Formats: sequence, C-alpha cells, structure tokens
Amino acid sequence: MSPAGRPRTRAAVFDLVRAARRISRVDLAARSGLTPATITEVVRELLELELVVEAGRGASTGGKPPMLIELNPEARYAVGVLYERNLCTVTVVDLTGRAMATSSSPGTSLMPPEQALPVVAERIGRLLDEAGIERGRVLGAGLATYGPQDRRAGVVLTHQPTADWFGHPVAGRLSELLGLPVLLDNDAVAAAIGEHWLGGVGSGTFGCLYMASGIGGGVVVDGEVYRGASSNGVEVGHITVDVDGGPCDCGNHGCLGNYADPRAVIGQAMRVPGLDRRLGLDPADSDVITSFVRIAAAASGGDPEARTLIERSARLLGTAAVTLTTLFDLECIVLAGPAFGAATWIYQSVIQDELQRRAFVRRVHPVRVVPSVNGSDAAAIGAAALVLQSELASLQLQELYRAR
Amino acid sequence: MSPAGRPRTRAAVFDLVRAARRISRVDLAARSGLTPATITEVVRELLELELVVEAGRGASTGGKPPMLIELNPEARYAVGVLYERNLCTVTVVDLTGRAMATSSSPGTSLMPPEQALPVVAERIGRLLDEAGIERGRVLGAGLATYGPQDRRAGVVLTHQPTADWFGHPVAGRLSELLGLPVLLDNDAVAAAIGEHWLGGVGSGTFGCLYMASGIGGGVVVDGEVYRGASSNGVEVGHITVDVDGGPCDCGNHGCLGNYADPRAVIGQAMRVPGLDRRLGLDPADSDVITSFVRIAAAASGGDPEARTLIERSARLLGTAAVTLTTLFDLECIVLAGPAFGAATWIYQSVIQDELQRRAFVRRVHPVRVVPSVNGSDAAAIGAAALVLQSELASLQLQELYRAR
Repeated sequence: MSPAGRPRTRAAVFDLVRAARRISRVDLAARSGLTPATITEVVRELLELELVVEAGRGASTGGKPPMLIELNPEARYAVGVLYERNLCTVTVVDLTGRAMATSSSPGTSLMPPEQALPVVAERIGRLLDEAGIERGRVLGAGLATYGPQDRRAGVVLTHQPTADWFGHPVAGRLSELLGLPVLLDNDAVAAAIGEHWLGGVGSGTFGCLYMASGIGGGVVVDGEVYRGASSNGVEVGHITVDVDGGPCDCGNHGCLGNYADPRAVIGQAMRVPGLDRRLGLDPADSDVITSFVRIAAAASGGDPEARTLIERSARLLGTAAVTLTTLFDLECIVLAGPAFGAATWIYQSVIQDELQRRAFVRRVHPVRVVPSVNGSDAAAIGAAALVLQSELASLQLQELYRAR
Repeated sequence: MSPAGRPRTRAAVFDLVRAARRISRVDLAARSGLTPATITEVVRELLELELVVEAGRGASTGGKPPMLIELNPEARYAVGVLYERNLCTVTVVDLTGRAMATSSSPGTSLMPPEQALPVVAERIGRLLDEAGIERGRVLGAGLATYGPQDRRAGVVLTHQPTADWFGHPVAGRLSELLGLPVLLDNDAVAAAIGEHWLGGVGSGTFGCLYMASGIGGGVVVDGEVYRGASSNGVEVGHITVDVDGGPCDCGNHGCLGNYADPRAVIGQAMRVPGLDRRLGLDPADSDVITSFVRIAAAASGGDPEARTLIERSARLLGTAAVTLTTLFDLECIVLAGPAFGAATWIYQSVIQDELQRRAFVRRVHPVRVVPSVNGSDAAAIGAAALVLQSELASLQLQELYRAR
C-alpha cells in the first residue's frame, strides 16, 4: 500500500490519537478495528512526519509496558475565520485544536467581497506574524460564514451582506491571497465541529444552536457532521414556529429568527419605553451583536424588562431545540456563538426546561443543554479544526514532507 | 478471509446487484471500490448460495463480453408487517423486494400484546401458506409500528394502544411465535427504507411523510436511513407549528398532528354541519383511517367542504415538509401511508407549492414531492426490505446453507 494511498485511514488514526491524548498501538488497533500491521505502518508514517511523538510507556497489561504516542502540537497549525457582517474573528490553532492566538475585530460591514477579502487576508497575516508561526507549517484556513453556500465550490449563495457576495468564489479568492488552501463552511456547522473536536460532548449525537446576528444550527451524529444533500441543512433560524406568522426575507413565514434572534430582540427592546436609553441602545447602530450582548448582560444582571425579553427569546429557542431534538434524536444541545454572552445561563436553563417537558425522546434518554467549550470563538475554532481534519486526510504525504 | 467474515461487504455487493438489476463483475468493482479479487470471491459465494444467478453476457467493451449477474428472486423471502391499532397489513416479498402476497385486515384495537401478537403470527402463517412459500426460505419478519421504541431490544416504549404495550418485548415474542428472526422498526422509517429499496428516488437524500392514524417521518441520506441517537427521530407529527398551541399527549404543545392528522381532520369534519351525515362519518367509529379516507375521497371528488379541510391539513403538512427540508437539506419528499388515499394528489400539489415558496434550500437545488411507489403498503413492504438488508448482512453463511 502506498503511503499516500490511504488518507482516510491516516485521518482516522490521527483522530483517535487526538481524542485519546495518549494511546498505545495496541489500543489504536482495538479502537479503530484496523490490523496491528496497518496501525504500525500508519503510526510510523505519522512519526516520520513528526505529527505524533512517542510519550513514554503506559501501564503494563502483562508483558512489557507499551509505548504511548501523542500528537506533536506544534507540528502543524490551522487558521479559522468567522466572517460576519459585524464581526470578524481570526484564530490560529495547533494540531490539537488549541487556540494559540485569536483576534476579533468589527466586520467589513457592507464592503463588496473584492475589498473585504484582502482585509481578512491581511488580518490573518498579521495574526500569524504576531504569533510567530511560519507559513510553511500552516495547513490552511477555514472560512465560516452564513448560508446558503456551495461548500464544495467555495462559493456563497446569499445576498448578505450585499448582492455582490452572491456567487462570489470566496474560498478561491482568499486562497489566492493567502497562498494556502481555504475551506468554506457554515458558521454553525463549524461551531459544531469545533465542539466535537475540543468539547466534552465527545463522540455523541448533538445539535449546536449558534447565535450571532442570526440563529443557525449544526448537527453531529456519532462524531460525523450531518450534511444532507448540499450542506445547507439545520437552518434552525428559518423554521416556522407560528403558522400564521409574518413573512421572512428567506421566503418562509413565521420563522424563529424573526421573533427570537438578536435583531428581533433589539427591535422589541426599542419598543419598551426607556429601555433603549437605560441600556445605551442606539437605533442607528448596525452592530447587532454588540447591542444584543448589552441586553443579555442587563438581563443577567437583574434588569426585569431585559430579563423578560431574553426569557421570551430563550423560550422560542427552546421550541427550536425541541423540534431539532424531536427530528434529529439528539442527546445534547450545545449553545455557541458570540451573542449568548452573559445570558448564556438564562438560555441554558430555559431551553433545558423546555426539553424536559416537551422533547419526544425525553422518556427514552436524557437531552442535556451545555454552553460551548469554545465560547464566542466557537465558529472560528471549529473552522480551523475542519482544516485539520480535512487537510490531514486529503494532503499527499509528499506535500507534508515538502512543507517541513 | 473467511466467507462469514465480511457480512458488510457481502451486503454492499448484494445491494449493488439489486439496484443495478443486471451488472458485470467489472462494474461491481468500479461501483463498490472493492478489488476485482474481492468481487470475484463475494460473487462466487452469492452464486453458491443461489442468491444471485448468471444472466447472459453484456455488451463488449473491447474484449470478450462480460457475464452479467442478477438476483435470484425466489432464493429467499421476507415478511413485513405494519401494526397499527386499526390496521394490520402483512406482506411477503421476494429477494428483490417485490410483494408476492399481501393481506390487510382491521387492527387488534385495544387487545393487550399477549393476545394481539398471536393474532399477527397467525395472519403471517396463513399468508405464507396461501402464497405457497416454505418457511425455510423466509429470512425473517420486519415489524413496523409507531414510536417511541427501543429498536435494538425490540421493545415498544409507548402506551399506545394500551398501557400493556409499554416495555413489551414485541420482537422477541413474535419471533418465538414464528420461529423466525423479527426486527422492530418505526413505521415511517420502514416506509422510507421501502421507498429507497423499490422507489424511483434512488440513492438520493429524501424525507418520507408517513400518514396513518397519526403523522410520522423518516429520512434517508445518500441511501442510508437517518437514525440519530436512538432511532426515535423524525417524529414530524410532534413538532410545534404554533408556539401558542394547546397541549399534546406527547408533552409538547402546538404539535402538527393535533391540527393536521386524520384524527384532527375527522374532529374538524364533525363540526361542519351536515358533513358527517353526507360522508357517512360515525363519531363512535374508532377506525380513524377508514373515516379519514372517506373525507379524502370526497375532497378529491369535489366536495367543497371536505376539500377545505383536506387543503388545510395539506398546508400544515407543507409547513412540516418545509421544516424537514430546511433542517435535513432534502432533495425530495415522499408521501406514504394508508391515509393519503384518494387525496394524495391534493397533498402533493399543496406541499410542492409550499416547498417552492418557503424551503430555505429552494434556490440551491429543487425539492420534489412524489407519492410513494409502494402506496398504502409502504411501511409493510419497507419492513420486509429491512429484513432483506439486515439479515443478508448479518446471517452467518452456515445458516443460509442450512436453510436451503
């Protein structure tokens, strides 16, 4: 078998080492179902590439204690970007997915892609320079943004933030600017991947409710991202919660987002006399996330009117969590994204309550609600994890050698 | 490699032969990604077992025309059962999934399982006798019924139709009565499997809206059934379509089923003055499907009041189809189950209209709505197909030899 001939096997072994932190070849064979001979060969390749290192001997199970191997964190890096109209978060992670450096800055607002992407590339370059990471050790960049999109082609299929973006080959253009492979994915899906990669949810079946300016979702089934026909599923902000509800820009009506997302809650807050002044909300401010986080902080801090608004939003997200669980049969709901902010605990408690009362599967197995381990940066970290998974699986070994 | 050592490989090759109808070893290798040597060995096993037969030579691609193989339909059979409170459909299919004989009779109503299962077993026995099929050639029986359930344990986890059923090991008990393996599955999931096995939807990603007394759902992704954590997902009748709606027996509120399923529509019909008499509806009749099919037939035949009721139900199923599509990113929605009846075309047209206007992915790819190729018997045929897939994959070859 040629060394480059089995990328999926190599990626699977790599993923087992990552998940176990330290593991022997015998345990790798047992957990992967691969033969000891295959494990020996794949581990030899990974050692030669310095992607893993030997890490001392484990406990004896009778004979000589087995040599353990673990990832070599600094062997390679990956970049992750969350691109939102109002927020651009760039992170660089090591081979274990740990964030080495992160920068968050305002988004590029209404800039067309030809202007916005060089700004993003420049921010990535600056972050790598500041963190002292050689370009040759960076596997690529993951670009997480909202949908719909043609993930394989690296093209966004939305008119947000402006019509110029529709059909623009964002991944190809950013790749040219960086000189690195770029993968495009949905922000909520990226957050779900990051949660699986770094989170406590492990190999289970879970859904991610992602809230930034809008509400998105991702589902991971037994450690694999749910993709559907075109990777444009789990758009939880656009499911109907009120059959008689008003129209949404997406074409549907009564969509969850129109009642519960940051933009909707800010609109509701503006209609509560005096609340806008008390919280310093400016109707002209287009930075939805910052305004919303202010309401969330006030709710968390005991402001009764802000609390009412956030609880109503949380109840509606609870309905979406119930629908997601009843359809995908989930064991856990992860709350991720920059908007939950200080009110994460309110959302967590209200959504948990809704699931306990209403989820169809609640008598078959419990459904937990947890905040993301990656906090506000979940999508950016997940986008980088996506690159680690995908590039390690698909790169030819020659290229990995060349890059050293 | 031992002949019994690779059941999944054998099942995969079998499935390719089934889907292709006639195929050469060369094409099997190309489509499966397996080596020609493996294909030769697996095909030899399948020929020895008489599960496939040689079927003449195909077109030459240069050299000697290749020998084609096809399934041997009468080599094995499988039984499928749809068990509903008001309806029990039993079918026996050949190795290609074609129904050889089917019987539909009223369900066992409120009978406890200790009485009901012998009745089901007796109906199966009678059908096999009438069709002249030897028990030794029957691989097993699939039992499709509503959820929730513990599919692996073969136990139903619902108090429907009576509390005695909760926790009853229905698959084990029916297996004892029949002397055959019995697999339990959700009725809507079985219908989706049957659609994939026999349908025109092929290897795509599609959802099945299944309507009998209630509304259920199943999703097939790239030819594989979506299972989630415990095979209790896609319960589309229990998603909230109205956040302010009334409570449902399931614990949730505003559930689709309470506004749109046969029981709900019959209730609505009873409140239209004169309609019950005109359609011969009897409020004391517990046979929900029969009463509903009468309303559906009247709607299809031009009765304006029945038409209004069925269209309202169809619009609500359209909302559910939009939610299912927006979450699972589906290419097609299949309408299956005994309740659609004569009004299938009304549901198809209304749901298609809703998807065209409202589904999030509609600008990325089309989403079609089609009636099931298996009609009212979709769940029973699917339950039998499930047995073919599963038993051919898992049975030891020795047992297959023994059964001849």
